[in-house]
Amino acid sequence: MEQFSGYSIHEPTSISSLSVDAQGLQNQIDQLSGFSDAPAPAVTRVLYTHKDVLARRYVKNLMGIAGLSVREDAVGNIFGRWDGSEPELAAVATGSHIDAIPYSGKYDGVVGVLGAIEAINVLKRSGFKPRRPLEVILFTSEEPTRFGISCLGSRLLSGSENLANTLKTITDSQNISFLDAARSAGYAKDENDLSSVFLKKGTYSAFVELHIEQGPILEDEGISIGIVTAIAAPASLRVEFEGNGGHAGAVLMPNRNDAGLAAAELALAVEKHVLESGSIDTVGTVGILELHPGAINSIPSKSHIEIDTRDIDEERRNQVIDKIHETAIRITKTRGVKLSGFHVINQDPPAPSDEAVINAMETATKELNLTSKLMISRAYHDSLFMARVSPMGMIFIPCYKGYSHKPEEFSSIEDMSNGVKVLAFTLAKLSLQ
Amino acid sequence: MEQFSGYSIHEPTSISSLSVDAQGLQNQIDQLSGFSDAPAPAVTRVLYTHKDVLARRYVKNLMGIAGLSVREDAVGNIFGRWDGSEPELAAVATGSHIDAIPYSGKYDGVVGVLGAIEAINVLKRSGFKPRRPLEVILFTSEEPTRFGISCLGSRLLSGSENLANTLKTITDSQNISFLDAARSAGYAKDENDLSSVFLKKGTYSAFVELHIEQGPILEDEGISIGIVTAIAAPASLRVEFEGNGGHAGAVLMPNRNDAGLAAAELALAVEKHVLESGSIDTVGTVGILELHPGAINSIPSKSHIEIDTRDIDEERRNQVIDKIHETAIRITKTRGVKLSGFHVINQDPPAPSDEAVINAMETATKELNLTSKLMISRAYHDSLFMARVSPMGMIFIPCYKGYSHKPEEFSSIEDMSNGVKVLAFTLAKLSLQ
Ligand SMILES: [Mn+2]
Ligand SMILES: [Mn+2]
Ligand SMILES: [Mn+2]
Ligand SMILES: [Mn+2]
Repeated sequence: MEQFSGYSIHEPTSISSLSVDAQGLQNQIDQLSGFSDAPAPAVTRVLYTHKDVLARRYVKNLMGIAGLSVREDAVGNIFGRWDGSEPELAAVATGSHIDAIPYSGKYDGVVGVLGAIEAINVLKRSGFKPRRPLEVILFTSEEPTRFGISCLGSRLLSGSENLANTLKTITDSQNISFLDAARSAGYAKDENDLSSVFLKKGTYSAFVELHIEQGPILEDEGISIGIVTAIAAPASLRVEFEGNGGHAGAVLMPNRNDAGLAAAELALAVEKHVLESGSIDTVGTVGILELHPGAINSIPSKSHIEIDTRDIDEERRNQVIDKIHETAIRITKTRGVKLSGFHVINQDPPAPSDEAVINAMETATKELNLTSKLMISRAYHDSLFMARVSPMGMIFIPCYKGYSHKPEEFSSIEDMSNGVKVLAFTLAKLSLQ
Repeated sequence: MEQFSGYSIHEPTSISSLSVDAQGLQNQIDQLSGFSDAPAPAVTRVLYTHKDVLARRYVKNLMGIAGLSVREDAVGNIFGRWDGSEPELAAVATGSHIDAIPYSGKYDGVVGVLGAIEAINVLKRSGFKPRRPLEVILFTSEEPTRFGISCLGSRLLSGSENLANTLKTITDSQNISFLDAARSAGYAKDENDLSSVFLKKGTYSAFVELHIEQGPILEDEGISIGIVTAIAAPASLRVEFEGNGGHAGAVLMPNRNDAGLAAAELALAVEKHVLESGSIDTVGTVGILELHPGAINSIPSKSHIEIDTRDIDEERRNQVIDKIHETAIRITKTRGVKLSGFHVINQDPPAPSDEAVINAMETATKELNLTSKLMISRAYHDSLFMARVSPMGMIFIPCYKGYSHKPEEFSSIEDMSNGVKVLAFTLAKLSLQ
């Protein structure tokens, strides 16, 4: 424990009393990273797998120890509640995710869940009593790994009828339905209609998420806290080409309709169209490219690629998507392949942070004597969807070289401790408003 | 049964007596295709899997019914022998493979194994007695699917010390060693040194393989039989790039070292360098392209591609390989990625057919009144390696649109029947020489 003042406060501005058990938090992060399907230091934790269920149990246990009352919804969003002096008021919420894409790291999302529970502990130790209730949320499946849907839990909380319908029929790559997978983890037991998850309007007066930056800016500039003013607009696409396949030795080059080369061309075109935007804020990535049948001596007869593109400017991002579509069509002509699928999986607008939440975060960093910077989030987060049903804000902390989604992901104990203090202060402040 | 003359001959030139049970052969092909890990009409039968073991049992049973004495070597090459009137003479052999790459068809290889057993039955029914012994061979793993090594069985039979050593340590993508896999299928029981498989020089006086063309020429030109004069020179490469990976939203474009785009560029360069050769006979294929970690929101940190290239001109093929290597190195510079692997898995010379075997095949087609054509095999076969230890020849039959390595692969009953007759006649002729 860094420091423990030993006396109670009733105002969050009594800063000296905000003592973070930083080593305890680090230990919890290390323990949680053990629930993984990849060997350490890599983490793989996919929605509703055995490891995910064990990790959820670990978090619920910590919520219980912190004195929070725990509730889960039909898709496994987990809520830990601390009732305030006026429990009928809209609560102030915080939280993030604990799922991890294959071979990633242990801080993405996790800092915002375990850090939030520690922020509650900090406030309790300080003697603080909230007016509005405080809630810690663990969101189900922020990562799109298993069902191709990002921010599944928060998207559903935000009231997406579209998603509630999709979840009735969707399956993973092993052909396991979402509902079967959810049931195997103990959720959606007697429910086919998941609209029970939708939050009532006005459930939360504010939502704040603590997260590693996933970019190099804070570290480069030696700044402790990033105050997020908006989240970039993300979109994702799934594209399928179909050609004729055949034997790699016997089919001569002019007779080929190679679906794999069509995919390779499109992957390079994604990069080209993103760069053509001329803006540093436009990004595009081909993270998945699969060939069928996938044998060295077989010309690919099918290919499947998944594209992620984002921008702080929604219109500019949509222009990139249009160009990618045009190029995909051009490739079908030059290569004699079929564009058997071009699906926009999601195409979300950007989300601005709330003025009052920004003010609370700025006040916190000032009172805590921490350096801070207003910034854009280029990665999206559950906050993107919580912004649809609540005033929203995000707190960023530095991470090593901006690395994320790989085993080298790292945030220092000190940076995490600063983030937890700012979060605790911000929650306290917002709970009194 | 097409026809059955009912009287014996002692010369293979008594053509009217060569009666093929073509429907029986088709039924066997259909039955064998049932031993598959993919749903019909696709076939997936990978070395030493349960389905492969069942298929091998099926073939050994047919060999037994045909009156052949069955022997297996340490890697599972299967030999069915019909002793001639002079059993001490070098035998005449025929055969092919029954393994099938993922999602392929039921004729590739299988026609040359089940057709060979039927050719023996044809000769037995005709009353023919061989002078030299006749042997039917089922070669282990012609396809490189599991261990990345093509023509594993025939390559080892041809005396490859290099392969005998490699097999001691090699593993599949699931990290199962070759030796453990072989043992699980009942082979290599007490052996670590697989040089026991090597054929003694002079074991065979000739080897003939019956195979579908895997190209469109015979069908297009309406010709029944292709007489192969040479097999093209195949080579295969395994290439690995390594970049920095990272989050698809957070890492800006100028800061990326995308290993996936490096692979996409190299795949397109393979096509370009092949076309630059200016020869229709040069082909190159990227059948495998894998990204790590393979998540839509993760920049690929590693990529793995496998390249197959072939030519009837060995030197021209090697120039293509050199250019691919140069381009891979150039890509590392432009993209800031590492070329963490560039392995030539195999790089085999072409193999010419033997004059005497060609003559026997030509005589057979003439006596049978079948149209024929001298041709090159652009696909490689176990014959490529048998040519190192025996005079070699190959008989091609037409296949639908030249399709192979996909479920639509097809050869008509009549074309297979013609192939079996030519094979039977050729074996008989060679056994008397
Ligand atoms: Mn993430
Ligand atoms: Mn995250
Ligand atoms: Mn094949
Ligand atoms: Mn074959």
